[in-house]
Amino acid sequence: MKIPPVKGTRDFYPADMAIRNWIIDGWKRVSIRNGFEEYDGPIFEYLKMYQIKSGEEIVEQLFSLTDRGGRELALRPEITPTLARMVNQQINSLPRPIKWFSVPRLCRAERPQKGRLREFFQWNIDIIGEDDVLADAEVIFCALDYLQEVGLTPDDIIVKISSRKMLAVLLQAIGFAEGQLDELYVVLDKRAKVPDDTFEQMLAEKVADENKRKKVLELMSVQSIEQIDDLLKLSETAKAAVNELNRLFELLGVMGVASFCKFDIGIVRGLAYYTGIVFEIYDKGSELRAIGGGGRYDDLLKQFGGPAIPATGFGIGDCVLEILLDEKGLLQKQLARPQVDYFVAFTEECFFKKALEITAKLRRAGLSTNFDYKGAKLGKQLKQASDQNAKKCIIIGDEFKGNKLVVKDMTTGKQEEVEVDKFFAEIKR
Amino acid sequence: MKIPPVKGTRDFYPADMAIRNWIIDGWKRVSIRNGFEEYDGPIFEYLKMYQIKSGEEIVEQLFSLTDRGGRELALRPEITPTLARMVNQQINSLPRPIKWFSVPRLCRAERPQKGRLREFFQWNIDIIGEDDVLADAEVIFCALDYLQEVGLTPDDIIVKISSRKMLAVLLQAIGFAEGQLDELYVVLDKRAKVPDDTFEQMLAEKVADENKRKKVLELMSVQSIEQIDDLLKLSETAKAAVNELNRLFELLGVMGVASFCKFDIGIVRGLAYYTGIVFEIYDKGSELRAIGGGGRYDDLLKQFGGPAIPATGFGIGDCVLEILLDEKGLLQKQLARPQVDYFVAFTEECFFKKALEITAKLRRAGLSTNFDYKGAKLGKQLKQASDQNAKKCIIIGDEFKGNKLVVKDMTTGKQEEVEVDKFFAEIKR
Repeated sequence: MKIPPVKGTRDFYPADMAIRNWIIDGWKRVSIRNGFEEYDGPIFEYLKMYQIKSGEEIVEQLFSLTDRGGRELALRPEITPTLARMVNQQINSLPRPIKWFSVPRLCRAERPQKGRLREFFQWNIDIIGEDDVLADAEVIFCALDYLQEVGLTPDDIIVKISSRKMLAVLLQAIGFAEGQLDELYVVLDKRAKVPDDTFEQMLAEKVADENKRKKVLELMSVQSIEQIDDLLKLSETAKAAVNELNRLFELLGVMGVASFCKFDIGIVRGLAYYTGIVFEIYDKGSELRAIGGGGRYDDLLKQFGGPAIPATGFGIGDCVLEILLDEKGLLQKQLARPQVDYFVAFTEECFFKKALEITAKLRRAGLSTNFDYKGAKLGKQLKQASDQNAKKCIIIGDEFKGNKLVVKDMTTGKQEEVEVDKFFAEIKR
Repeated sequence: MKIPPVKGTRDFYPADMAIRNWIIDGWKRVSIRNGFEEYDGPIFEYLKMYQIKSGEEIVEQLFSLTDRGGRELALRPEITPTLARMVNQQINSLPRPIKWFSVPRLCRAERPQKGRLREFFQWNIDIIGEDDVLADAEVIFCALDYLQEVGLTPDDIIVKISSRKMLAVLLQAIGFAEGQLDELYVVLDKRAKVPDDTFEQMLAEKVADENKRKKVLELMSVQSIEQIDDLLKLSETAKAAVNELNRLFELLGVMGVASFCKFDIGIVRGLAYYTGIVFEIYDKGSELRAIGGGGRYDDLLKQFGGPAIPATGFGIGDCVLEILLDEKGLLQKQLARPQVDYFVAFTEECFFKKALEITAKLRRAGLSTNFDYKGAKLGKQLKQASDQNAKKCIIIGDEFKGNKLVVKDMTTGKQEEVEVDKFFAEIKR
C-alpha cells in the first residue's frame, strides 16, 4: 500500500534538513545576541483562541479537530495567541520588558502555491511591557541583523513601515466608523500584494460610496510622512502617531539600518490585532512578495484576559525566505556535506571487531566516526572515507599485531603509524 | 476572555525551553557522531498511514482531523511510517545503509499522567538496508552513547533485549497460530510494565485455554538464552534467532556497553511491525518505567508499498527521560542562565543614542549585547548587567567626549578606558 504525502507539506530529506537547520540556527543565534530568550507552546490550542483576534483569513485557514473528550481544538496557525496566553499566566513573575523569541511549526489550510505551504516554520520575536517606539526599533533591527547576516543588502530587501494608529485617524477623518476599520484593513493590506486593478475592485466591494473610495485611494498614494500634513488637518492622536513614526526612523538610523527602511502608507497588515507601528519586509526584486512583517499589538494581552500591557513583534516564515536566498545564490555555501572526523577501515575480516571497538571509543570521545558494514576491500573503504568527507582515516592491518594503527590524513594523504595507547591518550587531550 | 492550555500539553517558558534544547541538542550531537543524518516529515499524514501497522494502542490514540478537501488526516503519533514512506519514495537513489535520525514532535490522545503527555518529542534513529545484527548493535550503542554522555551508568539504567523471531517460534510451538501473535504481543508487552496479577488477568482475557496460559507463563519466566534449549527442541528458525541474539551480545561487548545489556524474554514491544531483535531501556530504580526502546522491522517498508528491505531503529521520548535525569540530579548543571557578552550602560540621557549605536554594532559583530530601555541610574544598570550574567560592561559617560569607553570586566571588576575605534578594531579581530 503506497500512501502519498499530504499536499502542501514537505519531506525534509537530509539535504533539505541541512538547509532548514541552517536557517533556524541563524534565527536562534541572532535572537539570542539581541537579548531574546526562546519559548514555545503546544502545536494545538483550543479553537476559540484563534477566533478572538487572528483575522478572517487565518480563521478560514484553521486545521480544526475534535478530541475524544469533545474539545474543539486547532493546529496553531500563528504563535502570538499562545504567547499572549503564556505571558498572562505568569504576568506577575516575569520581569519586564519580556523579550522572547520562538521558531514554531505552524499549520494553515491554504491552497498550496510557491512560497505558501500548509505547514511551515516561522521566526517570531516579541517585546512585551514596553510602550516606547524603541521596542519597535529593536524588533526591526533584530530582523535586519539576521537578514544582513545571511548576505542580504539594501539592494535586495526593504522594510516598509507605517502606523495603524495614524491610519485609523485618517480613515475616520474620511468618514469611516471605528467598527468598519478591521474589515477595511484586510482590503488595504492587499494593496502592495495584488495588481492595482484587483485592489480597486476589492475596495469597491467593501466601500460602496465612490467619493469615499476616491479619498481612500488618494490617501493610499501618499509618498512621505510630511505629505500627510498637507492632506488634512491633523488631530492630536494623529500628530502623536506621526511623531512616533519620525522617532522610529531616527532610532533605526542610530542603529545603522536606515538604508533598509522607508515609510509606506500602504502597509496595514492583515491580522486584526495590530494597534500602532506596522511593517513588512519586501523582496525588492519582486515587490509583490513580502518575506515577513510585524508591528505593535497593545490590546492583545488584555483581550486574552490579562492586564493592559503594550507589545510589539514580528514573524518571518521559512518558505519565502528560502526561495529568496536561493535566487540570490546565498543558500549555496550551506549545501556542503558535513565532515566526519574519522573513518575506521580494516584490511581483513579478522580486524573487524577491533575496528568496531575503536569506532565505539572514538564516538564516546565525542568524535564523529564511521566504518564499513560490509568489510569491503581496503580501496573501497578508503573511497567511502573520502566520499564521506572524513578528515582522517584509521587503517587496522598487520601493524596492529605490533599494537599500532595507521592514521591517514585525508587532506594531505600522509600516513603514519601510531601506537594504540598513545593515539587514545592524544584523543583524550 | 481567558483560555487555558489544552490538558496534556506543555508550555515551554525560557527555563523549560533551555532544558528541552539541552536534551534535543544532545540527541542531535550524538546521532551525528554515530554517523546518522537528520530528516523530518510533516506533522500530519493521511490517517490510513497509521492504521496499517502502528498497533492497536496507537490507533486508538490518534488525533484525527478532516481538512476542507475532505481528506482524513492524523497528527503523527510516531515517525516510523513517515520514514518508511520517505525512504520508499527515493529508494533507488539513496545509498545504503541509510542511517537517519529525527527528533519529531509527536501527538497521542492519551490520558495525561506523569511522563505521558499528549504531545512530546522523541529521538528516533534508524538503519535501513542492513540485515546484519551489527546494525541492531550500532543502534543500541548509539542510544547508550547518549545516555552515558548525560551521566547515566549501569547502576541507573538497563537495556533489556529479546527477539520476536525467537518468540514467534516458541509461541507457535505452544500452539498459537501465526495470526494470533500480534494480539498476544500487545499483552506480553505489558508484563514488565504492570503488576504480575494484572498481567495474568490480561493474559486470561486473551488466552482461554489454561494449559496454553501456563506454558506462556513458563516461557515468560525464562531467565537466560541458554535456558531456551531446555524448554523445547529448537527449530532451525529458532536456532538462527538464538545465534543472532548471542552475536548481538558479543558485538555489544566489543563496543564496550555489555554492562548495560541483558537478555529478557519479556521484552516484546507493543507495536505490530517488529520482526526480529527488540529491546527496551529501563530505569533500574523503577523497573516499571521504560525510557525508550526499539527493534528490527524488516517487513515495514514492503507494507508501505516499497521493496523488501531490512530495517532497525529506536525511539526515546523526552518526558520520562527528563524525569529520570531530574531525579538523578543530572539536569541541574543545565539550569544556569546563558551568558551575555556585553551590557552597554550609559551615565546620562544624552549618551543614550550612543549606547544604542554601540549595542547595534556589537550585535552585528555577532556578540550578544543588552542595554537598559529605561535609562535607569548607572548603579541599577550595572545591577542589570550582573543579573544578566554579562561578561563585560561598557559604560558610556564623560570619557566619551574624549572618544573613550569604559570597559568593565564583570568577573574581576577591573575597569579600563579604551578608545572607541581601537575597541571596535579589536572586536573585529
